[in-house]
Amino acid sequence: MTQLVKGEIIAVGTELLLGQIVNSNAQWVSQELANRGVGVFYHTVVGDNLNRLQSQFKESAERSDLVIITGGLGPTDDDLTREAAAKVMGKEIVQDDEALASIESYYARNNQQMTPNNKRQARIIEGGVLLSNRVGMAPGFAVQDGDTLWVFLPGVPREMKAILQDDGFKYIEKHFSINQTIKSRMLRFIGIGESQLEHDLKDLIDGQTNPTIAPLASAGEVGLRLTARADDEQVAVSLIEKAEREIKERVGEYFYGTDDDSIQSKVMELLKENNLSISAAESLTGGRFVDNIVSFEGASSICKGGIVAYSNEAKENVLDIPSLVLEEYGAVSEACALSMAVNITEKLRSDIGISFTGVAGPTASEGKEVGTVYIGIYVDDNQPIVKCFHFNGDRDMIRHRSVKKGFELLYYLLKS
Amino acid sequence: MTQLVKGEIIAVGTELLLGQIVNSNAQWVSQELANRGVGVFYHTVVGDNLNRLQSQFKESAERSDLVIITGGLGPTDDDLTREAAAKVMGKEIVQDDEALASIESYYARNNQQMTPNNKRQARIIEGGVLLSNRVGMAPGFAVQDGDTLWVFLPGVPREMKAILQDDGFKYIEKHFSINQTIKSRMLRFIGIGESQLEHDLKDLIDGQTNPTIAPLASAGEVGLRLTARADDEQVAVSLIEKAEREIKERVGEYFYGTDDDSIQSKVMELLKENNLSISAAESLTGGRFVDNIVSFEGASSICKGGIVAYSNEAKENVLDIPSLVLEEYGAVSEACALSMAVNITEKLRSDIGISFTGVAGPTASEGKEVGTVYIGIYVDDNQPIVKCFHFNGDRDMIRHRSVKKGFELLYYLLKS
Repeated sequence: MTQLVKGEIIAVGTELLLGQIVNSNAQWVSQELANRGVGVFYHTVVGDNLNRLQSQFKESAERSDLVIITGGLGPTDDDLTREAAAKVMGKEIVQDDEALASIESYYARNNQQMTPNNKRQARIIEGGVLLSNRVGMAPGFAVQDGDTLWVFLPGVPREMKAILQDDGFKYIEKHFSINQTIKSRMLRFIGIGESQLEHDLKDLIDGQTNPTIAPLASAGEVGLRLTARADDEQVAVSLIEKAEREIKERVGEYFYGTDDDSIQSKVMELLKENNLSISAAESLTGGRFVDNIVSFEGASSICKGGIVAYSNEAKENVLDIPSLVLEEYGAVSEACALSMAVNITEKLRSDIGISFTGVAGPTASEGKEVGTVYIGIYVDDNQPIVKCFHFNGDRDMIRHRSVKKGFELLYYLLKS
Repeated sequence: MTQLVKGEIIAVGTELLLGQIVNSNAQWVSQELANRGVGVFYHTVVGDNLNRLQSQFKESAERSDLVIITGGLGPTDDDLTREAAAKVMGKEIVQDDEALASIESYYARNNQQMTPNNKRQARIIEGGVLLSNRVGMAPGFAVQDGDTLWVFLPGVPREMKAILQDDGFKYIEKHFSINQTIKSRMLRFIGIGESQLEHDLKDLIDGQTNPTIAPLASAGEVGLRLTARADDEQVAVSLIEKAEREIKERVGEYFYGTDDDSIQSKVMELLKENNLSISAAESLTGGRFVDNIVSFEGASSICKGGIVAYSNEAKENVLDIPSLVLEEYGAVSEACALSMAVNITEKLRSDIGISFTGVAGPTASEGKEVGTVYIGIYVDDNQPIVKCFHFNGDRDMIRHRSVKKGFELLYYLLKS
């Protein structure tokens, strides 16, 4: 087992020090480094100030093997990360042709005019290695100086993450020939509450040390993060698998996936496997269910589309909901959800139709209290089903939970 | 104008360094200090390690007038904040009777058994002043040492906030006889890139010190954060307003709002003001445009709904797009976007119809490259308009930018 790599993360940006944004980059990078057996000993946030940046970098160079810096690489004059680091290292800043080319092609692709100061982002510290940026304009770069490896990244989270995931982490692992692994796996559960899950697993959660078992709740579902340490990857994995078996023996019925799985992605898989198409009639969810589906690549083979019948007018004119239903039972009713599910299935000629109607708030409607939601599902020939739910939270949370519950219902329906 | 108080925030806790939680405490405290005219120059996260804590505290004592520390005050042996700080100050740790009393009463109130180690939390650094904790067990405390004021707070956000709001901020303001305010305003622009904006305002951004002007980019728009310092709030506000006028003289055409405004909220306002209803025909955006609208309270008075015609089948059967258009020009074409916009307006009987069709990727379609997007807008009687765009980024970013661009087009249309 190699000696533990001592790492730290520095975020550069006045907006962080003013509290305009939270340093979520440090959290994400810390998790990723922990999974690779790198110890993170400091997070620091410094403003775009040459002197303060230099004194921080000096100190970091003395205490850390790996320094990851996010932010301060932009095109404007108040982006000083490069300048400060180069001074501390006693190295030159050089223009990198490959970096410039990728910036120019970015502008070409976007038919935008490149302004002179964008060239600034093609400047790296001499001896630096480019880390390509798939999703943004300017690449990151890594520089070895003395005993310290410096990794420079943009502050925009999605660019920072993409660069590390594509090139950055590989480079870091290779550089430090990391062979001690921390393996981590997230087990995902739906249909069971966090406290119930913790209650059912209390002895395991308290007793386990390798892997550790950490419950994590998020709107509408629960996760368990298993984290195992070992010199050998296989050992770490088998430790996790053993714990996973014990957990599933108790609460397996609520388990739906791991890690990057989402209840949405599992439903997409099941639809693909069974070669089923889907469409949705949405009222309070306002198109968010279909948006969730379309966000997946290859959605076109599964999703016909949907109708957002937010107004009763649209429910009647576009979805052909009988005015009788709206007058007798109202738009927020089992009858309306049922009719919406059946009609969307037929109109879009899909195998499955799902409907959402309810009260997102802030005020009650049709005498139904805020959070009342009807979800209908129609799988052709079968009897359509409609379920009524009462969700807590604000308007956005109620709409979010409605969509999530829709996927949960579809998941259990398609599995059986 | 009093001299600026130099402050910094130190969070103590291994869970932060492991990325299990994000340092939201630092964000909140930073906002509160900024509003009180205290400059925050560093955020630091350190683990529960005596040596690292001491070296961090030594450095903070040298550079800051005010050091706010959150976490590491708990009852267990690995809570070392007190010990490290006392060593650095060369002061004793003493048991505080008032603190002990409040801890005991906390247990009494909650009918819980107080364990011996809870007494540890009644220990403060000699000369320290208690800061009462309304919502939790252990109070915080403040200690003056040399030129530095140290404020020790629990890491639990609601306890930390309550202590500062009740006693902490008052104590800090009194200690530094603060009578200065920092006022901050975000100016929001759309339709201009960050570097173009910075290029047009370079002399202002470089020359300005009060207020400072900081560009901030986010997907599809740019912000300028103006931050002014003054002894008097009115002076700070007028400084900001003066700078705002100068900025608008140059790039006012791209300005759409301030602070909490979003291009979506501005479009909602304009639709309400003009008493106009809207509907959308969405292909690649998959319902996300309407979802954006419905996320606003009172959307029902504005949004009729929409049709997500993701498949060509749906475009033909539900949106009545002529098969000729799809065969001759394809789904990703000006003709299709135009026909989608007109048909949705008529079907949903709305005043305005907007359409989105394009290639979200990952692969090209109909010979159109990834990122090609047509947006159509039809305001009845007027000639429908269709514009073609090329967006960069992954599938999600292309869909996000399409929706944002749709709101941008509507904003300028409704303003004129």
